[in-house]
This record gives sequence, structure tokens and C-alpha cells, in this order.
Amino acid sequence: MKTRAAVAFEAKKPLEIVEVDLEGPRAGEVLIEIKATGICHTDAYTLDGLDSEGIFPSILGHEGAGVVVEVGPGVTSVAVGDHVIPLYTPECRQCKSCLSRKTNLCTSIRATQGKGLMPDGTSRFSYKGQAIAHYMGCSTFSNYTVLPEIAVAKIRKDAPFDKACYVGCGVTTGVGAVVNTAKVEPGANAVVFGLGGIGLNVIQGLKMVGADMIVGVDINPDKEEWGRRFGMTHFVNPKEVSDVVAHLVELTGGGADYTFDCTGNTVVMRQALEACHRGWGESIIIGVAEAGKEIATRPFQLVTGRVWRGSAFGGARGRTDTPKIVDWYMDGKIEIDPMITHTLPLERINEAFDLMHAGESIRSVVVF
Amino acid sequence: MKTRAAVAFEAKKPLEIVEVDLEGPRAGEVLIEIKATGICHTDAYTLDGLDSEGIFPSILGHEGAGVVVEVGPGVTSVAVGDHVIPLYTPECRQCKSCLSRKTNLCTSIRATQGKGLMPDGTSRFSYKGQAIAHYMGCSTFSNYTVLPEIAVAKIRKDAPFDKACYVGCGVTTGVGAVVNTAKVEPGANAVVFGLGGIGLNVIQGLKMVGADMIVGVDINPDKEEWGRRFGMTHFVNPKEVSDVVAHLVELTGGGADYTFDCTGNTVVMRQALEACHRGWGESIIIGVAEAGKEIATRPFQLVTGRVWRGSAFGGARGRTDTPKIVDWYMDGKIEIDPMITHTLPLERINEAFDLMHAGESIRSVVVF
Repeated sequence: MKTRAAVAFEAKKPLEIVEVDLEGPRAGEVLIEIKATGICHTDAYTLDGLDSEGIFPSILGHEGAGVVVEVGPGVTSVAVGDHVIPLYTPECRQCKSCLSRKTNLCTSIRATQGKGLMPDGTSRFSYKGQAIAHYMGCSTFSNYTVLPEIAVAKIRKDAPFDKACYVGCGVTTGVGAVVNTAKVEPGANAVVFGLGGIGLNVIQGLKMVGADMIVGVDINPDKEEWGRRFGMTHFVNPKEVSDVVAHLVELTGGGADYTFDCTGNTVVMRQALEACHRGWGESIIIGVAEAGKEIATRPFQLVTGRVWRGSAFGGARGRTDTPKIVDWYMDGKIEIDPMITHTLPLERINEAFDLMHAGESIRSVVVF
Repeated sequence: MKTRAAVAFEAKKPLEIVEVDLEGPRAGEVLIEIKATGICHTDAYTLDGLDSEGIFPSILGHEGAGVVVEVGPGVTSVAVGDHVIPLYTPECRQCKSCLSRKTNLCTSIRATQGKGLMPDGTSRFSYKGQAIAHYMGCSTFSNYTVLPEIAVAKIRKDAPFDKACYVGCGVTTGVGAVVNTAKVEPGANAVVFGLGGIGLNVIQGLKMVGADMIVGVDINPDKEEWGRRFGMTHFVNPKEVSDVVAHLVELTGGGADYTFDCTGNTVVMRQALEACHRGWGESIIIGVAEAGKEIATRPFQLVTGRVWRGSAFGGARGRTDTPKIVDWYMDGKIEIDPMITHTLPLERINEAFDLMHAGESIRSVVVF
């Protein structure tokens, strides 16, 4: 079949909207009609050529929502007509990782996914006879895409696609880091570094679980209003204090119970760790750092009880936990609508990248 | 009263055995007759002048066992005749840290202890009229010493002093890191870096809790026999493999569930983290690094599920958990006797430091 898609033919060039060829689903695969897709920093990271493992040409996009329109042989967990979210972190429920009960990082199709291929080692996309790579196993910048059954989460049908798509990455990454990775308890004090789309979702996750003090840190004073809208109780602009770590330790009465880095900046990651309370404070790295950058601290920080950990896809098991987060949205426990600052047709997808780079959007969503 | 003690009059000089003056216990304090004390690397670290906060003159020693011979006003938790272990990590059960239930690092007397003083801001030791500092709140290189009630753990009377003293630091630090900090589960795979006194205790802790694979890593091949004696199942000499991290990941089938640094070397600490299994491996820093040294890694290591934490005094609450470890020894669940390689009288205490520096002892114990 043919499908409209925004193709990344090469790095550092705008996406091109073309009709590509798409093969139907093979065994264990499903064909999805993507109804809406968010544009995330990770897409830009790859498009900008910063990801040393980026593959071109490819169809980017990993934050979508849509409808199953065809299933391949042997597919049992979803059916035609189901509403689904594509998962860049699948959940096979059979690999060592899934069975460990300790991680959401299913490894069953990691090797081929990293190469831009379906699990059988081939691509379903092509253009003028040339194969086009899949991206993060999703390729939601295409109106139709094919995914393995284990990489789609079935969600309720009354959730609007143009909001539910955000659960496919940003919402789950932020809220999940609070709920699944840090397991923040009611009454905790927390600090969130970086109030972009992820940071705001961390904040509303903290609010949902009953945190007492929710401190937001950003060098952009405009973010204060955004943070407060989702539950932030205190705002700190590092440019306005002489020592941000000392300031935060003072503000939180000895250090935070939990801190979250949503900046990707390794200097900030260190501050986040060191702003934790002696004895038990845990710092969660969510942001993706530039290639080659390292985090550092004195080991004394850990020996005296601070814990350094990270979170990927909010520690959420894709098929099990993602639908719950959609439910939380539909039940009003978390918000999504105010974060979707821009909604555009596919033809204007490059504008969404411009808005992100200019810091003018929290999240832009493309609807097909 | 007068008491014999090995005094550190200045850094980098041998200890001197002299008679010092000791004031009796004030309110909330107890006078202990020390029967035996271990000599630990931390004592040497201070004596060698490497601890920037080291105070001289002082009476070192923090790994002792003895008998309560006098109690000050208001003391209720121990009585004359009780056998006790002095605690450099006290347990007041009333401070924010103790009440958090999340840490063993009681902070009630930290400020004065760090200054070499009793909680009331004075020293009980003096020599020729000059005050001598307490050390780590213990000063077990004195035949008699005074401690706050909250810094003594009451133990069973049938435990031999010359073995129980080791529970005051090394045994608890190693076994406790497994039991309290890492909470290692049966069947886990673990790697222990550094097979000195702490590393061997980590190994026997792992054996006690039912770990499957217990890998020891040391550049000294003589340590293999020591490791196997306490439960080590595999030995790796980093000098004999090209890439120790890759080798350990291979050996453990993808990385260890838990790794323990018992070296204090920040390069090894990084290896310990990176030898952890993706998704859930936890690395515990036990060793004390040189002043100013930092640990580093790529944040990707944490984002993909590894956890970096530390352990002080094995995460053990001094008064609550230390007596249990003495019980485990008396019940044969852990061993101490083979680790006490040398037993010396106080007059020969400097020899114990020489043996340690020469790597000839696992643990030397001084008996009074």
C-alpha cells in the first residue's frame, strides 16, 4: 500500500512529505493507522545528526496513537479496530528482562530495532524501490505504520488520539519516573530540574502521588507559571542564587527526598544528586546527555546514602502500564491538554521542529 | 582515672603507649573497659595524615569490644557488666535520620563527634593536662574509654571479645552491605572488587543470603584462596584479562545483579557499576576514596537501569543490628576466626599497622 509520510532523507535537512510504499504486516505484526503523533526532542536529536547511531533515510516519530487496521498471522493480543499506542519500549513478557520483574527494558527485539528494522531483519517501508528505515520501532511520522504485536499498547476508545499520543513518550516518561522508578511516597519533598515537557510531567506525577514540596528549577523565568499550573510549589532560578545546591538543600530542610534531572545536562545531573538528602535522597536521571558526556561526583555522596539511578520510558512496562496512564488522564488525575500547545497537519511538521527549537512549544502534535 | 592508651600525637608518627587521664562518664555516658580492638584501614588513613579532618593528638581505634564498668546519670539502656561494642555510627532513635526508617546514619551527635569531642563539646581524655581528642566517637586504642549511651551496642556475654570486636566495623560493613544496603536475594549473581577484610565479609554475606554466583576480583592472586574459603565461586584477576568489565559481563551472563567496591579506588568503582546488568544491576560503593577523587560514568549507564549507591557501616543501625551480627557469628552463619590473622598486645600495636600496610594481615586484633 501507499502511505503519506514525513521522511528524513538525510541529517540536518527538513523532513519531506512524500508517498512511500508500505508492506502489510507479517506474522506477529500489526498495521496501524496513525491518527496523531507528538514531536519529541529525541526526533530532533536524530534529525540533527547528533545520534551517532542515527540511520537515514528513515521515518522518524515515536509518540503516536492510532487504530489497528490489519493484523498479521498469529496476532492475538490486539484486533482490527483497537485503539493503540505504538511502543518504542516493547513488552514481550518472555525475555530475561521482562521476567526479571525488575525492569521495563524488554530486550526481545532490541537488536533489530536499533538497526531500523522489523524483528525479521527487514523494513516494511520503501520509496522508489529503496528501503527506508523504521525509527525506534515506531515511525509515527507515517500515516500508516507496521509494528510487532508486542510493541503496541491497547488503550480505551474514548481517549482522543491527539492527546493520548503524548502518553507514548513524554507523559509516561515523566509521570512514570515518579511512580515506577522513584516510587515517590506521599509527603515527600522533590526537586525537578528542567521544566520542559518531561519536567512538567514529573511535576504532575509528584502532585498525583501526594508529594509535599515540589520544587521546580529552570533558568527560564517564564517556566515558573508553567510549573505552578501542574502542581509546583516552589520555583528556583539558578541564575538568581549563588549556589543552587546549597540553596536547594536549605529550602528542602536538608536536601530533597527525590530529585529528577530533565535537562540532559551532566552538570545539572550532578547538582541534582548533591541536592538530595543525606542518608536516603534519590536522584533520577531522565534527560538524555550529549554523546560522550559523563556524570561525576565524589563517592562520599553515595556512601553517605544518596542513590543515583536513571529512568527510561518512566520505568513503565509498555503494554501493561501505558493504558493505565491513559486512564489516569481520562479520569482527570493528570492533565495533558494544556501541554499540547500546538496542533498541526502533517504538511507543517517541520514547523513543529522550529517551535521546539525556539522553545515556543511544550508539545506540538501532528494530526493526520 | 588513669588508663593505658596508644596515642597518636601527630600524623605519620608511630603510636605511643602512655598512661592518659580519663574523666568518668557524665550524664548519658558510659565508661567501657575495652578488651580487644581491631586495627582498620581507616585508623591508618587518619594516622597517615590523609584525612584532612584528622585531629591530633588523639586516641584512634573504632573497632572494639568490652564491658561497661560505670554508667553516668540517666543511662537506662545498658548497665554495669554488660558486654558492648562501641559504635562510630550511633543510633539515637530520635533524630530525623533514625526516624526516617531509611538510613542508619544517625545525626544526633555528628557535629561533636567530627570534632573529636563528646556530645557536650568536651573531651574525657587528657595527657599532662592537655586534652586529647576522641576518634570516631570510640577511641578503642585505650584500655578504658567513655562513650554516649546511644553509641554502644549490647551484645551477648558468650561472644569472645577478640572476635566480636571485628563486628564493630569490618564484619558489619561487609555483611551489612549485602543484607541491609543491597538486600541481595537468593539466587543473585554478585561481583566483589577487592578481597581484603571488607571484601571477604561481603563474600560471606553473599553466601549467607544464598547468592548463586559470587565472583571475587583482585589483582593479588593470593587472594583467590581467601575468597574461596568464605564462599567465592569464581575468581578474576584483572591483570589476566584484557577488559575486566567485558569479562565480568560475559561471566555473569549479561552483568551482575549486584557489585560491591571494596577497594576505595574510583576507577574500580566505575568498573563495578558498569559490570552491572542492564535494567536492574546495583553497584554498592563501600571503599573510602582518596580525598578529592571523583567517580564518573556515562549517564546512559544509569538511564538503562543500573543503580549506583553506597553503604556506610553496612547500612546497619548500630544498637539494633550489630548484636544480631554477633548472634550470626555465634550461630555459625558467618565466620570471624579465620580472618583474625594476628593477635597482639597493646605494646605491639604499631606492628599491626605494619602488617596491614604490607598486606600480610586480613585483620590484626590488639588485646588488652
